[in-house]
Amino acid sequence: MDKSVMNIGICGAGTVAGGLVGLLKKNQQLIAARIGHPIEIVQIGSRNVPKQPVFDGIAFTDNIFEVAENPKVDVLVELIGGTDDALALVGTALRAGKSVVTANKALIAEHGQELFQLSDQVGQQLAFEASVAGSIPIIKVLRESLAGNEIEAVVGIINGTTNFILSQMSKPGSSVSFGQALAEAQRLGYAEADPTFDVEGLDAAHKLTILSAIAFGTRLRFDAIYTQGIQEIQLEDIRFAAELGYRLRHLGVTRIQEAGIELRVHPTLLDEKEMLAQVDDVMNAVMVMSDAASQTLYYGPGAGAGPTASSVLSDLIDISRGATMPVMGFLPGETRAIPALPIGQCQTSFYLRLRVADRPGVLSRITRILGDYEISIEALLQKDPEQGIATIVITTDTVVEERMDATIDKLESSTDVLEAVIKIRIFSFGG
Amino acid sequence: MDKSVMNIGICGAGTVAGGLVGLLKKNQQLIAARIGHPIEIVQIGSRNVPKQPVFDGIAFTDNIFEVAENPKVDVLVELIGGTDDALALVGTALRAGKSVVTANKALIAEHGQELFQLSDQVGQQLAFEASVAGSIPIIKVLRESLAGNEIEAVVGIINGTTNFILSQMSKPGSSVSFGQALAEAQRLGYAEADPTFDVEGLDAAHKLTILSAIAFGTRLRFDAIYTQGIQEIQLEDIRFAAELGYRLRHLGVTRIQEAGIELRVHPTLLDEKEMLAQVDDVMNAVMVMSDAASQTLYYGPGAGAGPTASSVLSDLIDISRGATMPVMGFLPGETRAIPALPIGQCQTSFYLRLRVADRPGVLSRITRILGDYEISIEALLQKDPEQGIATIVITTDTVVEERMDATIDKLESSTDVLEAVIKIRIFSFGG
Repeated sequence: MDKSVMNIGICGAGTVAGGLVGLLKKNQQLIAARIGHPIEIVQIGSRNVPKQPVFDGIAFTDNIFEVAENPKVDVLVELIGGTDDALALVGTALRAGKSVVTANKALIAEHGQELFQLSDQVGQQLAFEASVAGSIPIIKVLRESLAGNEIEAVVGIINGTTNFILSQMSKPGSSVSFGQALAEAQRLGYAEADPTFDVEGLDAAHKLTILSAIAFGTRLRFDAIYTQGIQEIQLEDIRFAAELGYRLRHLGVTRIQEAGIELRVHPTLLDEKEMLAQVDDVMNAVMVMSDAASQTLYYGPGAGAGPTASSVLSDLIDISRGATMPVMGFLPGETRAIPALPIGQCQTSFYLRLRVADRPGVLSRITRILGDYEISIEALLQKDPEQGIATIVITTDTVVEERMDATIDKLESSTDVLEAVIKIRIFSFGG
Repeated sequence: MDKSVMNIGICGAGTVAGGLVGLLKKNQQLIAARIGHPIEIVQIGSRNVPKQPVFDGIAFTDNIFEVAENPKVDVLVELIGGTDDALALVGTALRAGKSVVTANKALIAEHGQELFQLSDQVGQQLAFEASVAGSIPIIKVLRESLAGNEIEAVVGIINGTTNFILSQMSKPGSSVSFGQALAEAQRLGYAEADPTFDVEGLDAAHKLTILSAIAFGTRLRFDAIYTQGIQEIQLEDIRFAAELGYRLRHLGVTRIQEAGIELRVHPTLLDEKEMLAQVDDVMNAVMVMSDAASQTLYYGPGAGAGPTASSVLSDLIDISRGATMPVMGFLPGETRAIPALPIGQCQTSFYLRLRVADRPGVLSRITRILGDYEISIEALLQKDPEQGIATIVITTDTVVEERMDATIDKLESSTDVLEAVIKIRIFSFGG
């Protein structure tokens, strides 16, 4: 690459592309003072003609592959999203001898392995800071800042839409249901018209796939992630949990255990005093536990034009400064074959809500079942019965999930228990 | 540097050096998998013979300069602290063609300018991630992750000792005085026998000097920092502020205004809902405001063997990976000459506590004085008088500090006001 300028091509002409072009224009001199030369936009490629005025005056093509093969382009920025075309596009650019910066979490989570191999073969960088948690530099933190540490766990709020919805439902005295909070998120532009991808946890699962592989030096394994969304969360459980000192967040959790690595995305209760429990609305935050640095946390906006552009630009600047970094933080030959744990073998504590018949001895029979399965009760809340039905809320000590599930089967088969038991996992940073 | 191994020499044999040696031993294989070769400790230098067993078997000298000139050493790690010997030592190592990693904030804040010039001349790296905020990678974040951003402000809890003391004093219902909290901090090893350096804010001022220069691309200017410690904080003000929804923290604040850059370290009230207000005990956190990434926050332990060693090691790994980085994030010729603002020209809102004579019309006379100086009142709290003396607590809108001080002079010259007015700055992230 000619060191007097870095020439980039951008594929995609949506919000993030607009943010990036605007940022490059606004901070042109500042960036040159930091890296020694300007970053110039040679060409923009997009199926649709860009509408934002910020793109005016930049060469445009509706053939994205033209940008990937343009000999004037040093680095391709992939912002088209999706996986099929993006995979072909990034492959084309790498084979044409260009480094690539992408914000595409689905592409990396599902096809990263083959792309990393290709980038290694052709000796080009493939950077994807913007793919996880917006402006939070969590990829760099894991690959560089904590590179001397054995990572123990990465736990994060990595989807702004679900965090906004749960924040709305969790406000003191809130009577906002999931459906109402989702509608509000859509009104504010925080959720798509079809919110499935965010609400059911797939977006978070893509991001967790990437974080886990870098943290533990394994292959990317999107298929191994246990994913549960927030669509079935009821206000009642948020309130009971609050009485017990917990707040509900939708977390991605990846943690190393003796038998393997936990990979799970689900609604989770946190002690209300935890830093992660303070993260409201569309903000993201990732807590990393490691042997030397101990607990560190990284917080910021998880999406949006500016924050995403900030991370794309940090990758471009790293490439221009000539850092050579193993894509996944570990050298290609050093990937570790640590098994992924199925959800049944994950260990956590639990919140349970039971509807029981209000009759003598019911509490003793229920707690006896828990005792039979060696499940210790941490706290118990019994609510006044209504129309002969009592509500019991129990939090437990840490237990392997399959034992918890067997216990719940047993509880549900009892004539005392009238409805399916509600189960929510609790994450504790202590153990 | 021979790429099959990185040979380091360590000067200093205290807690952090012990943490670093232990970490290098424990994670040897992991580090090699991440960077492609081991990091070997060639020699330790210290005035005092090291006592920790972790140093056993490593070549030792009581002449630290021998390590700096040892031809087998690729990179010198400076952990002796202080400024005089450390300056000579780092200079010797750089002139001997070695890169240097240091955790020494006083050295960088007071002598960084000449050392950066030297490192640039000799073409070696000078890295100091561990000098600010323990395991929090705030130097890397400012130099790399946010390198595409115009930084607007950096605001942080960057001294664990003062944060521990204020946390103790701020617990709900606490009757712990400054002196008692300090004694507790000393008992737990969080404060030195002579706590002056931490408690009076000098340690935080060193760190803020470094953060400000990197954030804004200026020279280091330790002398320009306004520094106020926490030794005069009274429980009463913590309680009144809590009633108004604020928590007290000892902050370093550097922020760009039209006329220049604010550089100030002092006790500060924060809205209790702010992330920084949740940071308790010895933890550190730094909030960065910037144009594209928006508000991002970085949280972790600010001191200790493991966290500091983690950051030292991240610098060693960066050097081994061959990143070439302008030491201060801007190229040497690109330093910006933005003036530092004296405290009188800083803008903030204020908490005031007044003891006034309990007689008719006093409140109206006091608020009239504020009005005469065009100071808007945000909230006012009047406490029941005791023995003819009433307490009035006022929070104001944003105002230039010298105007606030003139107003306080006027208030204190009034016969209504019986004691010196207590003034505490409030930081608001909104403006």
